Amino acid sequence: MTRVRLLIEYDGSPYFGWQRQPDVPTVQGELEAAAFHLNQEETVIQGAGRTDAGVHARGQVAHFDLVRDIPEHKVADAMNAHLRPAPIAVLGAEYASDEFHARFHATSRHYRYIIENRRADLSLDRGRAWRVGSPLDTDAMQTAANQLIGRHDFTTFRDTLCQADSPVRTLDRINIKRSGTRIEVEYSARSFLHKQVRSITGSLVEVGRGKYPAKWISEILAAADRTACGPVAPSEGLYLERVGYD
Amino acid sequence: MTRVRLLIEYDGSPYFGWQRQPDVPTVQGELEAAAFHLNQEETVIQGAGRTDAGVHARGQVAHFDLVRDIPEHKVADAMNAHLRPAPIAVLGAEYASDEFHARFHATSRHYRYIIENRRADLSLDRGRAWRVGSPLDTDAMQTAANQLIGRHDFTTFRDTLCQADSPVRTLDRINIKRSGTRIEVEYSARSFLHKQVRSITGSLVEVGRGKYPAKWISEILAAADRTACGPVAPSEGLYLERVGYD
Repeated sequence: MTRVRLLIEYDGSPYFGWQRQPDVPTVQGELEAAAFHLNQEETVIQGAGRTDAGVHARGQVAHFDLVRDIPEHKVADAMNAHLRPAPIAVLGAEYASDEFHARFHATSRHYRYIIENRRADLSLDRGRAWRVGSPLDTDAMQTAANQLIGRHDFTTFRDTLCQADSPVRTLDRINIKRSGTRIEVEYSARSFLHKQVRSITGSLVEVGRGKYPAKWISEILAAADRTACGPVAPSEGLYLERVGYD
Repeated sequence: MTRVRLLIEYDGSPYFGWQRQPDVPTVQGELEAAAFHLNQEETVIQGAGRTDAGVHARGQVAHFDLVRDIPEHKVADAMNAHLRPAPIAVLGAEYASDEFHARFHATSRHYRYIIENRRADLSLDRGRAWRVGSPLDTDAMQTAANQLIGRHDFTTFRDTLCQADSPVRTLDRINIKRSGTRIEVEYSARSFLHKQVRSITGSLVEVGRGKYPAKWISEILAAADRTACGPVAPSEGLYLERVGYD
């Protein structure tokens, strides 16, 4: 038995999220079906981040136990052969220590949210970004975002169904940059609450369009009340970019 | 009657190219159907570049004559409303002089070709890039590309069905840059021959993978023989980025 660490990219559009569920397509389900072909037995794949329905990944990390004798350099190709034509790609696969755990050992998670700030409908980027028609003030958004950095009770910004024991998280970084009509919001933290990135992004956009001043973000954070949150940003603009390990 | 200049973006995947044809979907056909709704009469839309089947655009330019009284700032929204749900977006529309001609007055055209240089199948970028599995040496590709800059007989690099009177063109710029697994090849010229960008790209990739040395490009250019060309790169990696006017 060899533990294998996978680096995975996927288009989340057709999936009911990462997590395996009966009767609906999920990313974990597709990967476990491919791993079943490799192992010729039921195989569990553990992911670092349980992305929601429609959320994409450029750098999800996962692990599983390989019970058959497949050389390290052939594992990714073998997985991809069995994944086809699913829009899920194993970018890399390497043997890891038996103790490696993709979820529990992750020390940082990095998400990117892509907004297309324009009036015209999306064509090439359809399903890959959130189109926001009203002009957004990214300086105001960054000022608002800075108030969330550090350790806080993020009750306002987590889904009511969030199963985490505590609403307290430490947000290390929110970086907002614009290039033409494209706005990217980068988030880094050790871990995130359920729908935390989309809840924050939706609220930052309310500030960006001028509906509220930047300091409103501090007020709704302090309220620790889910109903104070702005509209949750849609899943199609969100990407799990990278997972860090010590 | 007011001449209108359009800036257009599209996903070329579902279309048999730009040019109107009976019984098959084309970009020009979709745009003319939308313009018909505005004008309530048959309306011709002239584009700057007649992109092939499957080729995308971020900055196609076109013109048409508006015969009904629609304010300038409402034309793009009106076109987009009638284009829905086609993956074609009018990014901008402005009144132009009656003499403006999108095709004849264009003084430069800029294309981008996107290669994903990796073994794993594409997921998020499927239909948006050409995946090349063997490692590509972009320095060798740039050295090869530099030999094509300037005024040359590009017979080797044009489709046998190309209808241009002359195979002579002046290539102003080929710029190759890599970022991780992504390689972008940017082309600029006053005008291009039919399949010229894809023919050059396919040949540069032969150099990049080490099948031929960089100087091979000069040899096949000098041969002025279509059969000397490398494999033509697929359409899904090609984007019409911008059209310039004086």
